Amino acid sequence: MDGPILVIDRGGGLPIGVQLVDGLRRGILGGALRAGDQMPSTRGLASELGVSRSAVVGAYEQLAGEGYLEMRQGAPTRVADLAPHDAAASVATAAVGTAVTPGVRPQEGRPDVRRVSRVTERLARPVGERVAPRIDLLPGRPSTSRIDTRAWRSAWREAAARDIPSESPRPFGMPRLREEIADHLRMARGVACEADDIVVTAGTSEALSLSASALAVALGRPPVIAVEHPGYPSARRTLELHGASTVPVPVDGDGVVVEALRRMPRPPDAVMVTPSHQYPLGGRLPVAARLELLEWARETGAIVLEDDYDSEYRHLGPPLPALASLDEAGRAVLVGSFSKVLTPWLRLGYLVLPDNAELRDAYATMRADDRCPVPGVEQDAMAAMLASGSVRRHIAGTRRDYAHRRKLVLDALDGLPGAPLSGLDGGLHAVVRLPDHAASAAVLARLEAEGVAVAPLADYSAVPGQEEPGIVIGYAGVSDTQLVEGLQRIRAAVLAAG
Amino acid sequence: MDGPILVIDRGGGLPIGVQLVDGLRRGILGGALRAGDQMPSTRGLASELGVSRSAVVGAYEQLAGEGYLEMRQGAPTRVADLAPHDAAASVATAAVGTAVTPGVRPQEGRPDVRRVSRVTERLARPVGERVAPRIDLLPGRPSTSRIDTRAWRSAWREAAARDIPSESPRPFGMPRLREEIADHLRMARGVACEADDIVVTAGTSEALSLSASALAVALGRPPVIAVEHPGYPSARRTLELHGASTVPVPVDGDGVVVEALRRMPRPPDAVMVTPSHQYPLGGRLPVAARLELLEWARETGAIVLEDDYDSEYRHLGPPLPALASLDEAGRAVLVGSFSKVLTPWLRLGYLVLPDNAELRDAYATMRADDRCPVPGVEQDAMAAMLASGSVRRHIAGTRRDYAHRRKLVLDALDGLPGAPLSGLDGGLHAVVRLPDHAASAAVLARLEAEGVAVAPLADYSAVPGQEEPGIVIGYAGVSDTQLVEGLQRIRAAVLAAG
Repeated sequence: MDGPILVIDRGGGLPIGVQLVDGLRRGILGGALRAGDQMPSTRGLASELGVSRSAVVGAYEQLAGEGYLEMRQGAPTRVADLAPHDAAASVATAAVGTAVTPGVRPQEGRPDVRRVSRVTERLARPVGERVAPRIDLLPGRPSTSRIDTRAWRSAWREAAARDIPSESPRPFGMPRLREEIADHLRMARGVACEADDIVVTAGTSEALSLSASALAVALGRPPVIAVEHPGYPSARRTLELHGASTVPVPVDGDGVVVEALRRMPRPPDAVMVTPSHQYPLGGRLPVAARLELLEWARETGAIVLEDDYDSEYRHLGPPLPALASLDEAGRAVLVGSFSKVLTPWLRLGYLVLPDNAELRDAYATMRADDRCPVPGVEQDAMAAMLASGSVRRHIAGTRRDYAHRRKLVLDALDGLPGAPLSGLDGGLHAVVRLPDHAASAAVLARLEAEGVAVAPLADYSAVPGQEEPGIVIGYAGVSDTQLVEGLQRIRAAVLAAG
Repeated sequence: MDGPILVIDRGGGLPIGVQLVDGLRRGILGGALRAGDQMPSTRGLASELGVSRSAVVGAYEQLAGEGYLEMRQGAPTRVADLAPHDAAASVATAAVGTAVTPGVRPQEGRPDVRRVSRVTERLARPVGERVAPRIDLLPGRPSTSRIDTRAWRSAWREAAARDIPSESPRPFGMPRLREEIADHLRMARGVACEADDIVVTAGTSEALSLSASALAVALGRPPVIAVEHPGYPSARRTLELHGASTVPVPVDGDGVVVEALRRMPRPPDAVMVTPSHQYPLGGRLPVAARLELLEWARETGAIVLEDDYDSEYRHLGPPLPALASLDEAGRAVLVGSFSKVLTPWLRLGYLVLPDNAELRDAYATMRADDRCPVPGVEQDAMAAMLASGSVRRHIAGTRRDYAHRRKLVLDALDGLPGAPLSGLDGGLHAVVRLPDHAASAAVLARLEAEGVAVAPLADYSAVPGQEEPGIVIGYAGVSDTQLVEGLQRIRAAVLAAG
C-alpha cells in the first residue's frame, strides 16, 4: 500500500468515520504513529481535517476498543504498544502496553495544538511494514462475529418503529420480554418458570446489586453473603459496594463445599454460587450436593443466588438441573444474562425469583423507586430476537465454535509439566495452574511483553494471603488464528517458567 | 362500526399485533368487555385465535400502557375502569379503576380456560357505544407525540448497524456520547463541561443511587443527605434504599432555605436540591442563594447534588446559571436526564462531576465493578440524536407546546377561591394548594371517580405529619383535548370542595 494515509475523500466514497479509523489504523500498523505517541486532541484533529469532532471521537473510541489507542484517566490519548512478532525484541518494551481496564476512567486528551501538525504530517507518509496487534485472552468476552446481524438489525429496527411511550418501562420489565425470557429458560435450561417470575436486569452486575439491596430491605439490615473462594472478584466487590458483607466459602473440584457452609458458626443470609461451572476453577456441583445446599438454605432461611453465567455452553453433556428447578422451599434465585450468550454490550440480564412472597416484595420495593434500568427499546429488541429464534440459533452455532476452541486449548496446553489445565468442561475459559507465584509472575510478565492478555488466578481469591498461582484464559473473544497464536505464546511461557 | 371485532385477518392485512390491539380496544370502548372483566390468559387467547402467545402478550401490554387493561401483582389481567363522560353515573364505580402504580409488580393472568370462550364470544359481537378513556395527569410524563420519529428510527438503525463489541461499554459511558452530552450542556445550559466530566447513567434514579453509593465509598460510611421538604419522594426513597440517611430541609417560595442548612447542628454530607424549579412547589433559587449554598458546601465539605430535571422548560425567561457553573470549590454534581426532554422510556441520563479527584475516584470505584448499565446501542443512538440536532429541535418544539399547555392550565385553574396555583414558571407540572386535607380528599376522590389521575401534594412530604393539602398536575403527557377535559373536571372538583 502506497501514498498518504489520512486524506478524507468527500466524493461519495466511504463514510468519514470509516475513513478516519482506517487511516489512523494504517498509520499505527505502518509505523507512522508509534507506541506512546500522544494523539492530537479530538478538537484539533477535527479542525485540521475539516471533519466533525464527533467523527474523530468515534474513531478514537473504536481504535481504543480495538487496542490501537490508549485512553487513560488524566492523560492524553496515546498510541498503544502493539506487541511485535519478535518476542525477544518486545521484552524491552514490557513496561508499556497494558490494556484499558475497567475502573480506569477513559478521558479524552486535552487540546495540544503543537502536536496536531506533527501527527497529521506523519500520517501523510506512505505506509511501512505491519506489526501484530495484541491478543486479548482476558476471560469474559464472548465471540460476537457469528451474531446474525440481519436479525440483530431487524430486531432493533422493529423496536425503534414502535410508538414511543412517555413513561418508564414497568419495574420488573416489559411483559413481552419477561414472557420470552421465561419461554427461553423453559426450553434452553429446563427451568419451569413463568413470565411473572422474571425480573429484567441491566446485566449480572445490576442483578447482584439489586439482590444485595433487596436482601437488606427484607432483613431490615445489611445482609451477610457467602461467596465462593476462589470466585468471581467483580461479583464479590459489587455485593460489598452495595452494602453487603461477604464471607468466603471454599470450593473443591465439584464446586462450593456445602459442608463448609454448615460449619459456619453463624449462617450467612445468602450464598452466591456458580454450580453449573464454578468460576473460575470449573467444578460442576453434583445433584446430591445441590439438594444438600437447598436443604441447608431451607433450614437456615438463607437465600441462594445461583449465577448461571455460562450453562448454555457445556462441552461434555447437558447441564445438571438448575438449583431453581430443584428448589421447593422458595430459596433459590437464578441470575442469568445475555452477556455470554450474545454480548455484554447489551447490559441485559434477568433474575428468576422463587415462590417467596417476602422476597418478591423486597425486589418490588427496590424497583418501585429505582425503576427498571433497561431501556424500553432494548427490551422490545431483545424480545424480538428471542421470539425469532435467532438467539437459539446463535447459541447452537457458538456452542460448536467454542467446542472447537476448547479443542485448540487442549491441543496446545494439555499435559504441560507442573501446569495442570482445568475449567474446560464448559464455558468460554480455561485455567492453567502453576507450581508457585514466581512461575506465575514470570509467565504473566512474558505474556504481557508479548502482547497476550490473560488474568492472574490470584485475582480470584476471596481471602487475602490465599492467592493461588496460575492464569485464567478466555478463548471466545478472538479469532481462531489469534487464539492459536496466543496459545503458542502461553505454551512457550509456561514451559520457560517450568 | 358493525360486525365482529376480533377476527384475525391473515390475508396481507395489518400485522396481527395491530389487529389484536385494535380489536380488543374496540371491544372495551364498545362495551363488549366491561370494567373489571377478567381477560383470558395470554396462552388461552393465543390458542383460541391461532396466533402466537407473544403477540397476545404484546397487545395486552400495549393496552395496559394505554390504560385499557390493568395488570396487577398476583391477579389476572382485567379490563380497566374507564371513566364515563357522565360524572354522576361514574361515582358508583369509584372503587375500581386506579392506575397501575410503580411498585406494583405487573403479572399476567393465570390460564383460565373457562373465560376464554366467553370473552372471545363477546368480542365477536358488534360494537356498541363509546366510553371515554381515563385522563392521566400524573406528573413526570412528557409529551412524546412530537418526537421526530424519522430521526429516532434512523439513530437506532445507525446504532444497530455498527460492529457489535464483545465487552461492556466503558464505565463512565462511551466517549462519543459523553462528548455529545457535554456539547449539549454547553450550548443548551451554559455549563462549561468537557466529555471527561460526564458520567452516562440509566436515568436520574440510577444517578442518585450511584451518588449515594459513591459518597459511601468516599466517606467510608453511609452518607447523611439533606433533601428538600416537600420534595421528590421517589428520589428520597432511592437515596435511602441505597444506604443513605436523609434529613429534611425546608423550602420557601425561592427553593431550599440555605439558612436552615447552616443551622443544622451536624452538617449533612450532601444535600439534594432542585434550584431551577423546586419540585414540586416551583421556586427558583436566586443567584445570591446559589452562591450562599456553594459557600456552605465549601465550608462544611458537603456535596451538592443539583437535580436539574426540567431546566430546558423555563416559561418566564432563561434559567439561572446551574450550581455546577458557579461552583469553584469542586462541590456541585449536576444530575440531568433525557426523561423530560425525550422520554423516561430511554432510561438515560448523566452526571456532570466537578473538579474533585476524590469524588471522581469514588464514582470510578463504583462503576468499575457495577459496569455502565446503559447499553452500547442506546449510547450510540443517543449520540446520533444529539449530533443530528434532533434533540435540540425537539426541545424547541415542546417548549412552545408546553407554554401553550401552561396557558390552558392558567385559563382553567387560576384564581379559584382558596386554591392558589403555583409551580408554573417552568417545567411540565402545576400545583393547586387546597385549604385543608378534607378538601384534598374530596377533590382526589372525585377526580379518581371521574378517571382523572393526579398526585396528592401530601405524597411529597419528607416529614411525617407535615403533609400539605393540595394536588400536583402533570400537563405534558396527554393531548390538548384531554388536558382541557381534565382541567375542567379538576376545576369543578376544586369548586365543589371549596
